Amino acid sequence: MKLPVLYKIFKQDIQLIEKELKSSIQARSRLLQNASVHTLKAGGKRIRPVFVLLTAKFGDYDIERIKYPAVALELIHSASLVHDDVIDQADLRRGSPTVRSKWDNKVATYTGDYIFARAQELMTQIDNPLAHKVLAKTILEVSIGEIEQIKDKYNYDQNLRDYLTRIKRKTALLIAASCQLGAISAGVSETIHKKLFLYGYYVGMSFQIIDDVLDFTATEKELGKPAGSDLWQGNITLPVLYALREPILAEEIRKVHADMSHEELRPILEKIKKSGAIEKSMEVSNRYLNKAFAILKELPDTKNTRYLYDIAEFIGKRNY
Amino acid sequence: MKLPVLYKIFKQDIQLIEKELKSSIQARSRLLQNASVHTLKAGGKRIRPVFVLLTAKFGDYDIERIKYPAVALELIHSASLVHDDVIDQADLRRGSPTVRSKWDNKVATYTGDYIFARAQELMTQIDNPLAHKVLAKTILEVSIGEIEQIKDKYNYDQNLRDYLTRIKRKTALLIAASCQLGAISAGVSETIHKKLFLYGYYVGMSFQIIDDVLDFTATEKELGKPAGSDLWQGNITLPVLYALREPILAEEIRKVHADMSHEELRPILEKIKKSGAIEKSMEVSNRYLNKAFAILKELPDTKNTRYLYDIAEFIGKRNY
Repeated sequence: MKLPVLYKIFKQDIQLIEKELKSSIQARSRLLQNASVHTLKAGGKRIRPVFVLLTAKFGDYDIERIKYPAVALELIHSASLVHDDVIDQADLRRGSPTVRSKWDNKVATYTGDYIFARAQELMTQIDNPLAHKVLAKTILEVSIGEIEQIKDKYNYDQNLRDYLTRIKRKTALLIAASCQLGAISAGVSETIHKKLFLYGYYVGMSFQIIDDVLDFTATEKELGKPAGSDLWQGNITLPVLYALREPILAEEIRKVHADMSHEELRPILEKIKKSGAIEKSMEVSNRYLNKAFAILKELPDTKNTRYLYDIAEFIGKRNY
Repeated sequence: MKLPVLYKIFKQDIQLIEKELKSSIQARSRLLQNASVHTLKAGGKRIRPVFVLLTAKFGDYDIERIKYPAVALELIHSASLVHDDVIDQADLRRGSPTVRSKWDNKVATYTGDYIFARAQELMTQIDNPLAHKVLAKTILEVSIGEIEQIKDKYNYDQNLRDYLTRIKRKTALLIAASCQLGAISAGVSETIHKKLFLYGYYVGMSFQIIDDVLDFTATEKELGKPAGSDLWQGNITLPVLYALREPILAEEIRKVHADMSHEELRPILEKIKKSGAIEKSMEVSNRYLNKAFAILKELPDTKNTRYLYDIAEFIGKRNY
């Protein structure tokens, strides 16, 4: 089964989430409204809400209740991107100008604060203290991630563990929380929602590694920004860490800086691609995917478990 | 009774809160740690925790439980100041450089995010869904306040209601929430915690009006910044709104801009002070204070109610 099939099965509920997302950020201030809508539009595949819906299926699935965590998790993701772009001084995200570049840092700061606040207000519709504990811990880790990311920029002496910790905070934990919160909000037992958390964590790690690989292998059109942007901005991702193990190539990589032209960068990107770093990175991604599949084997073999299998497989094979 | 007496009675608990505040922001990143400590140091009188403690006295007072909302509310206040300074591009707060001026906007953005996240994580120690609803709504209103404040800058055509809505979001709601959350966390009945919310709201309105008056009447040393800074930065406060009712003075006020030297500003400040605007503003402040006192009359006449009377009176008479 391909992901589009999954989206088709959940079509009605995904459309409802999309509608709720839009209405959640209705604001009296037109500027805030525009900046918030702009943020959500840049959002992409809504995979966090999809994970909330899929995991809620393990319990008492009521879309009128499940919509709250589904919307909240997408809002938290969006808010963190708006602030990330302030911290990264990024001008483009998926081919669109960022809030800070379309407006300014001020607008980005308060738009992010507003969307964060709205998300947490929606979550209070779920009267389960555990849901709030999980969400609060996740947001805390994500906020620490924002900082670590800065600290590690252009730091070529970091190791694999630094990278894995960073993508855990940046991506995997929020996907893990989406899986766990969908389940918790639907009254799923602790044994199961903890497994779903782990499943989400492994899928999230794979998802981010593939994202980092695509920054080398996808086209500018697919990425919405030039290939190699991560390296150019000093984000040391997994392919770069493997490429750094080649002494001669490492010397070239260490000279990369933000004032470099794209023409100067291109030969380095090519060498990284040919170094085997992409394949090694994909191996790590696949190891995480297999761990996710192993978790699914511990769950009852139902249609819902198979949906989780399908979406993980889709994520593991995506090429854009 | 003076406030110092009140602080003396609660001395041990206030010291505990201060210790918990410090340990709440322990972070592995040294930069984040320094920026967070710097933020808390600039904090001032800790009136939000004091209100949490005072109102918790109406119920089952257990400092080991009450410390969570007490610390959380001070952290939320601090985090909002850090982001406010990004939005206002402010370099000084109470005589100290702001995080954004000591470091930069990036550090201020993530330090604020981190402190916000930590606050909400601490609050999850309180297993009462109502507490989370109150807090989430408050943070949402505060975040909307950040934006409205920008919109109204140098807008001399706003009216009293605009100003009152602004200070409600900027100050009064968080003090109101502190009063209500202290009570809710101590298991106080709905009738009482709703009255305590209202009490906090009225006291908070008075508190901010006096703050805005002091910007004209206090010395630079007391303020930690030149007198008249609000006007200079385009913050139209209550004294300015009253002064704008004098046509000739209004013409001069409308010419104020951020590039004006302090020498040029001083005669305008003097005229505002002599226009009766300060007295009229204090009348409004006193009206709010009296409303706060009226609420207290509806509460049982105990020692704890009298503490709330004392702190409101102190706030109403403070001159720094």
